[in-house]
Amino acid sequence: MAPSNSKVSECLTDKSLAAVLPEPNAPLEIQELKIPEVIDGAVLMKVSNVGVCGTDVHLWHGKLSGVPYPLILGHEVVGTVERVGPGDTRDLNGHEIVEGDRIAFHDVVDTCYSCWYCLIAKAPTKCPHRSVYGITLDSTKWPYLIGGYSEYLYLKPRTQMIKIPEHVTFDDAIFAGCALPTAIHAVTRSPLRWGTNVAVQGAGPVGLMLTILAKINGANTITTIDRSIERLKFAEEFGATHTLNIEETSLDERRDLVRDISEGHGPDIVYEATGNALAVPEGIELVREGGTYTICGQYTDSGGVEVNPHYMNRKHLDIRTVWGTETTHVYQAVRTIADNVDRFPLRKLVTHHFMLDEAQKALETQGSQKSLKAVIQPNE
Amino acid sequence: MAPSNSKVSECLTDKSLAAVLPEPNAPLEIQELKIPEVIDGAVLMKVSNVGVCGTDVHLWHGKLSGVPYPLILGHEVVGTVERVGPGDTRDLNGHEIVEGDRIAFHDVVDTCYSCWYCLIAKAPTKCPHRSVYGITLDSTKWPYLIGGYSEYLYLKPRTQMIKIPEHVTFDDAIFAGCALPTAIHAVTRSPLRWGTNVAVQGAGPVGLMLTILAKINGANTITTIDRSIERLKFAEEFGATHTLNIEETSLDERRDLVRDISEGHGPDIVYEATGNALAVPEGIELVREGGTYTICGQYTDSGGVEVNPHYMNRKHLDIRTVWGTETTHVYQAVRTIADNVDRFPLRKLVTHHFMLDEAQKALETQGSQKSLKAVIQPNE
Amino acid sequence: MAPSNSKVSECLTDKSLAAVLPEPNAPLEIQELKIPEVIDGAVLMKVSNVGVCGTDVHLWHGKLSGVPYPLILGHEVVGTVERVGPGDTRDLNGHEIVEGDRIAFHDVVDTCYSCWYCLIAKAPTKCPHRSVYGITLDSTKWPYLIGGYSEYLYLKPRTQMIKIPEHVTFDDAIFAGCALPTAIHAVTRSPLRWGTNVAVQGAGPVGLMLTILAKINGANTITTIDRSIERLKFAEEFGATHTLNIEETSLDERRDLVRDISEGHGPDIVYEATGNALAVPEGIELVREGGTYTICGQYTDSGGVEVNPHYMNRKHLDIRTVWGTETTHVYQAVRTIADNVDRFPLRKLVTHHFMLDEAQKALETQGSQKSLKAVIQPNE
Amino acid sequence: MAPSNSKVSECLTDKSLAAVLPEPNAPLEIQELKIPEVIDGAVLMKVSNVGVCGTDVHLWHGKLSGVPYPLILGHEVVGTVERVGPGDTRDLNGHEIVEGDRIAFHDVVDTCYSCWYCLIAKAPTKCPHRSVYGITLDSTKWPYLIGGYSEYLYLKPRTQMIKIPEHVTFDDAIFAGCALPTAIHAVTRSPLRWGTNVAVQGAGPVGLMLTILAKINGANTITTIDRSIERLKFAEEFGATHTLNIEETSLDERRDLVRDISEGHGPDIVYEATGNALAVPEGIELVREGGTYTICGQYTDSGGVEVNPHYMNRKHLDIRTVWGTETTHVYQAVRTIADNVDRFPLRKLVTHHFMLDEAQKALETQGSQKSLKAVIQPNE
Repeated sequence: MAPSNSKVSECLTDKSLAAVLPEPNAPLEIQELKIPEVIDGAVLMKVSNVGVCGTDVHLWHGKLSGVPYPLILGHEVVGTVERVGPGDTRDLNGHEIVEGDRIAFHDVVDTCYSCWYCLIAKAPTKCPHRSVYGITLDSTKWPYLIGGYSEYLYLKPRTQMIKIPEHVTFDDAIFAGCALPTAIHAVTRSPLRWGTNVAVQGAGPVGLMLTILAKINGANTITTIDRSIERLKFAEEFGATHTLNIEETSLDERRDLVRDISEGHGPDIVYEATGNALAVPEGIELVREGGTYTICGQYTDSGGVEVNPHYMNRKHLDIRTVWGTETTHVYQAVRTIADNVDRFPLRKLVTHHFMLDEAQKALETQGSQKSLKAVIQPNE
Repeated sequence: MAPSNSKVSECLTDKSLAAVLPEPNAPLEIQELKIPEVIDGAVLMKVSNVGVCGTDVHLWHGKLSGVPYPLILGHEVVGTVERVGPGDTRDLNGHEIVEGDRIAFHDVVDTCYSCWYCLIAKAPTKCPHRSVYGITLDSTKWPYLIGGYSEYLYLKPRTQMIKIPEHVTFDDAIFAGCALPTAIHAVTRSPLRWGTNVAVQGAGPVGLMLTILAKINGANTITTIDRSIERLKFAEEFGATHTLNIEETSLDERRDLVRDISEGHGPDIVYEATGNALAVPEGIELVREGGTYTICGQYTDSGGVEVNPHYMNRKHLDIRTVWGTETTHVYQAVRTIADNVDRFPLRKLVTHHFMLDEAQKALETQGSQKSLKAVIQPNE
Repeated sequence: MAPSNSKVSECLTDKSLAAVLPEPNAPLEIQELKIPEVIDGAVLMKVSNVGVCGTDVHLWHGKLSGVPYPLILGHEVVGTVERVGPGDTRDLNGHEIVEGDRIAFHDVVDTCYSCWYCLIAKAPTKCPHRSVYGITLDSTKWPYLIGGYSEYLYLKPRTQMIKIPEHVTFDDAIFAGCALPTAIHAVTRSPLRWGTNVAVQGAGPVGLMLTILAKINGANTITTIDRSIERLKFAEEFGATHTLNIEETSLDERRDLVRDISEGHGPDIVYEATGNALAVPEGIELVREGGTYTICGQYTDSGGVEVNPHYMNRKHLDIRTVWGTETTHVYQAVRTIADNVDRFPLRKLVTHHFMLDEAQKALETQGSQKSLKAVIQPNE
Repeated sequence: MAPSNSKVSECLTDKSLAAVLPEPNAPLEIQELKIPEVIDGAVLMKVSNVGVCGTDVHLWHGKLSGVPYPLILGHEVVGTVERVGPGDTRDLNGHEIVEGDRIAFHDVVDTCYSCWYCLIAKAPTKCPHRSVYGITLDSTKWPYLIGGYSEYLYLKPRTQMIKIPEHVTFDDAIFAGCALPTAIHAVTRSPLRWGTNVAVQGAGPVGLMLTILAKINGANTITTIDRSIERLKFAEEFGATHTLNIEETSLDERRDLVRDISEGHGPDIVYEATGNALAVPEGIELVREGGTYTICGQYTDSGGVEVNPHYMNRKHLDIRTVWGTETTHVYQAVRTIADNVDRFPLRKLVTHHFMLDEAQKALETQGSQKSLKAVIQPNE
């Protein structure tokens, strides 16, 4: 593979190694793929860091429908611009993209901005034309290099890019790939402001990002809830004023605590980021009367759960469910990281690093939740 | 004291007959009660019409907690001002209340506007100091005449009143007592506007009021759903563009229909007004992706129900639950009736009238759902 | 020109007559232009009706900057699909566009949905890449037929189209071209709902559309203000409950009237649609304390005007200014017309019709305000 | 006056010294007034600190209408509970008020929560029944001790109180009296969130509180503008990322700077807190297209000013004017101070302290703007 001290030879390369998932539950295979011509509006990115997402583990297990195999995983990707197509290619701030730029991008492409969901309902995350790098793009079709578990990633025209400021490391920036935009979308649909009392269900990457956002927005108390001692320690380091371990407390105790620390009222806002259906009735129980419950962690089907409509009605609630991310959430994510990196050095949450040929191991590590965030560095 | 022919004898009276519920499940008893002095800020109302609410039936069966028995039922009350306390008493528009005025009033009193819920959370329907005429006020304590199943009702100081315009009959105005304010509160917390596609679960009094409000607001399609042929006929007469009978259709058929009539998208807003917990998962199924579901009919506990959080999350929903009414909803109710009475003659929904000594029968009629709205006229 | 009973010969034509404005203040010239090939995603429309907008008059006088001359005027256009490019072309509801479809379209194209204004600020009407048929598109460049004063109009790929239902005439539909979407945008940024008291400044096309929208949304009182007796008559016919002629009343009288008809409070919402700077201080005076003032008529610079910030501050106002239209406003416009055409037959507002070779006269008629809405029918 | 180590003698006192303003422009006179009986619901406060507000200076000069003279000035008051009326008196969190409690309170009382503005328009700051301690309450009528320039202040029943936590000094808490609630009201009516670019016009007490709130809410850049070098230094210390001196820069330079620091877009939100009418056209110029301008500093009439409606319309703005404060803003102010006092030690903004018999000098010092915030300590 091309060494990092030889830009010239890199540029001349026309091959890229990639870790390919041939079919569900099969081991990843390192393959050499041809790099297509970089056309007008497109960018070839040399991948620095690619995050291993819980979704990648689900994809490995074949749990998502509508996914084309063989697949190159990896939708949380940051790196350096290797080549730019002819013509004028610009990032979201209108700055020209040039070789050597360090960039992040919105992993969702092809949102059409022509259909009823995009233009009339103004719910572009429900646009039926969307594709996602590393999830729904087809690696057997142009431009082939469509996932981040690869030396090079081909960013098609109309991929939304944003430059990463120099003072932000790639390990910090990796959270702009998925976890932080998801949390930002949730926050955007809730009345988060200074002085509010917040509870966060789940201290995985999305839950920690919600914790951080609550802190940055000046929340008064932030109670993060999980079953992992390690993750709750991260929560404390990244903004939580209180943590609760569901292994060590009953629901009644949790409800009492979040009330006691909020003058007896309960949290104004509860965010769900667990992926566990059982979290939902608990969230409805924890939130204060007249409060807001925002659900953004139910990305896979973990079954049905019982709720009591009368109890919900009596509490006079505002419940939002939040699907997918818009480009603005990625843009805000990069800015949020850049503006707060001293206060919240996200790179500390990257607990494990892997080489490209260790991609399988990276996947297994994240699957076992040994890592908070595992990262593959394909060009190291 | 006020003249107007035979009024004289009435006005001189210091007694009032009332139908008293001695204890849960006991028959109502007609008793004669003393009318207390009408103090500054108070008003003695001669009751013209009092609606029999589903809640009255629940109260009869002792299903609500925190209710003091013996009780004088009746919170949907309109009538004529018989006496006004000394001093200057004004309605919500700042007009002086005088004898002979035809008035409606907010059945909820004693909202404190001093506590955390009233002033900080701005959720006055959760104020712990609230009392309700005919439900939680104690008939053994001053001012005794606290329910509408009575010749006279004593409106305490700070009861919020509004005059009923001359062109509105008491049968029209009775809906400002409970059903219409409840529906207005629900509508206020939803994005109802012209051109939207709306579905309403339930064609009881609240569901019909939601149907009417959707029509008045220019909704494009309004699909009202119930199991009663009679009630669905009322829905068609009062604004529904489509009706669905749950006895005659499957959930799949209902979902398909509301999609078909909305360019394939499904209703932007679904309102729940059924009192049946099972309506909630159906509502989540019916509403379009990115739509709004507003729950205002779960006033009693009809048990738990299963929902799928992943399905909810994927639909990117906004779910509101709506509790109680504020004074503004009653104010708007009277205005809404007055402004639209030609188009929507609500009096037609009063299917049964009873004398005061038939109060027991009125209660049973409403309990059996033979009536859409039964009304008692204590002074007839 | 091609007769309407011979579809075949029409389709074979490759020429279109158009009224071209060579330079500001010059008379329009009828020219014959070549019809370009209809490429994938494009549509050739046979123009039925094109509205003459006040903006057209300004363009004729050279009052807008950034406009390329020679110019083919006409951005309010409805007609019939003559040819469709190869491939699958769909309208905003996802329905395939086929020859013979009667369509409207968003006159603004090339909104990029890639820039900061489109995706981050979510203010697509401020996107710097937007072009407008009949205003900023260059008739000397492909596809040449870019304005509605022409037998044929070439709709480029990504032009947003919507089919016009059969029961809507082209004269009804013309208002979806500009006036109604502008009014819809204003209404979308205001708290218009049933029961509100509304005032509308101006009874030109936009002011009348605001009047109609207020009525459709169930406003309680609607007071439309203008200096033209004819226009105020239209206002009364199209929803106004009250009208005020500024030639016959003083500002004090107008303020008193709008207060008197709203229980003494003043209008909850005032819409400005005059194009006259002096309307703004009057609007601030008319709106009630705590009310909303929405300015959407100041499309050209009519100079500065004095306001009193202390007076504004004391009134606790919400003032919105509204620029341009989004595709959704055109979509909603077509639906609004279709849903309400019986109640509000907009075609009655088309006071003058002209042939294509009378385009110059049409422009002069609209410029003199003799017409409420002049329409050119290029294929008659 | 009674020493602080002798609670008993204090409680027995029935006299209070107060600085009374006999009539506009007359010097303050120290008078001894009788303390009325503390009735049920009332509280006698021993005044610790009273802020000298710019409004006090205006009152001294007789510039406000509807003010009863003689007057005891002082509406920014914190102190200690000396006596509590019989019965159960509670603060906004529902905690019982007892002797020795350190408290702040909402200076506005008698908001009726019965009128159209309070209950229907939900604009309680426009309630016609409101009175303000130290401004509109009449010192010749019960309870006489109605202003803070006094050893004791009599808080009438229904005065909204909140306890001050132990870790907050009275000099910190004084800002909950007026400046911070005013700023909180402004912020509540604007989309302030993390990551926004904010500009604040004016670095007086309200402008500094807006600067602090922007910082607490995670604003990205905060540019505070004033003409005083000292005040701009405070701004830098209390959250401003940039400051601009209007004596040293042109409007063009200011507009360019706020654009340059926000990726070329301009501030998302501009707050006005100057009291100078000329700030309003500048604010409209500074705010970005599609941004929000919030005016809360125009409490006195400084004349008219010219604006250009076309320019405003083209910018697609949201302009709010904000009048008065609600109880919730005072509640949030106390919490905000308590939660952030380490980061923002507001007591540093109290530049001058005075004894009660120096009240006249305190007024003159604040009037000359020598002090940022002058405070009188009547019991020192």
